[in-house]
Amino acid sequence: MNIILLTAEDFCSPTCAVITDPRRTEHIFLIHKAQAGDQLKLGLINGDLGQGKILFIATNHIVVDEIVLDQPPPPPLPLTILLGLPRPKMLKRILQTVATLGVKKIYLLNSYRVEKSYWQTPWLTPEAIHTQLVLGLEQGRDTRLPEVILTKRFKPFVEDELPRLINNSRALVAHPYTNQACPAQARESITLAVGPEGGFIPYEISMLEQCGFTAVHLGARIMRVETAVPYLIGRLFS
Amino acid sequence: MNIILLTAEDFCSPTCAVITDPRRTEHIFLIHKAQAGDQLKLGLINGDLGQGKILFIATNHIVVDEIVLDQPPPPPLPLTILLGLPRPKMLKRILQTVATLGVKKIYLLNSYRVEKSYWQTPWLTPEAIHTQLVLGLEQGRDTRLPEVILTKRFKPFVEDELPRLINNSRALVAHPYTNQACPAQARESITLAVGPEGGFIPYEISMLEQCGFTAVHLGARIMRVETAVPYLIGRLFS
Repeated sequence: MNIILLTAEDFCSPTCAVITDPRRTEHIFLIHKAQAGDQLKLGLINGDLGQGKILFIATNHIVVDEIVLDQPPPPPLPLTILLGLPRPKMLKRILQTVATLGVKKIYLLNSYRVEKSYWQTPWLTPEAIHTQLVLGLEQGRDTRLPEVILTKRFKPFVEDELPRLINNSRALVAHPYTNQACPAQARESITLAVGPEGGFIPYEISMLEQCGFTAVHLGARIMRVETAVPYLIGRLFS
Repeated sequence: MNIILLTAEDFCSPTCAVITDPRRTEHIFLIHKAQAGDQLKLGLINGDLGQGKILFIATNHIVVDEIVLDQPPPPPLPLTILLGLPRPKMLKRILQTVATLGVKKIYLLNSYRVEKSYWQTPWLTPEAIHTQLVLGLEQGRDTRLPEVILTKRFKPFVEDELPRLINNSRALVAHPYTNQACPAQARESITLAVGPEGGFIPYEISMLEQCGFTAVHLGARIMRVETAVPYLIGRLFS
């Protein structure tokens, strides 16, 4: 937690906030070992970054005063990401990771190799997704919440929505079985599709190509999705 | 498991191997749902890649015949990585990740912000490290085992061993508090140091700089180690 994210509801005046939820209070109290008088790095969700001073601290109740939020959050990545819905355990981590990295639009996509049961996980409720995104933002010192869109039907999504969505961007799909290497240092907006474990099937790759995507490989090594995503972002946006 | 890694002990003749451990047999039987007659993608640890044909398969016993190993594994990354020893749960994943990505030399380093208890974890035994590395290689379709070196004393290591070790490479340490951005597309050997959670302390950064390291940042966002490592590799070696 490299910043503490506040919500509008935490504020009791424009410069004073009260934090009462165990997640944040315990972190500030037990991990940061903060004391009254200490400065805290703060951000307002979808707002600015800044700091405030701890007026009172207990395990379940922290009052922060003299709050000044006057620095903009880091600029978002010009990247929309489409992910084959990962298994629940990986989903949590990948949502944190993309939020940390500054991705602001994430489509979780059904595809042939996505196990149907993955769509039943409680980690896909709006509250659970929100929690992981906030954890990622707090790690990355960002405030702007990404948008996560669930698309349970591959074909109508690719045929009806995706052409409009990739407009004005370079559309790439990571695929081990192609001759074209993924570009580096792209100086443009990117739409990036990454398949589920086992990858997209040839029919899906072909549909994405018809829609305007270029299949690109990452070299001889096959990476897990949670490795491929930061690797690709480091490569594309360096 | 994108290839099945064999050891010399698995072979009963130059073209025939018997796999009996539950980890591999269950994966081939239950996940791959392989049957007699199917081809398997294979590799020999520290040897070549190739394939073989399943002659007999049961849950606890698989005979692979007609084995041909004639393709070299992907080239290693020209990268030595120094990691502040991560917490045990993250250690497992990061060892897999660096093995998948093709790093062949990893120093796990003590530093001020490494909790002493992390050195006691059973995940640091040679067998446990070996297991994670093999998992990473099987994911990345590589055969060459990385070397993992534990360095429990920061100062003597940096003063006595590191200068020789970084010889003929560009030495970088990831650090949020510097003006210099991490280079991209480095066309040279790199030694890369990444601190533990919370980073290296200023004294450690200064020792590394005296040794020949350049502190470089990754932008405004602070990444977890397991995100920073693939991000940096994508950036440096694209």
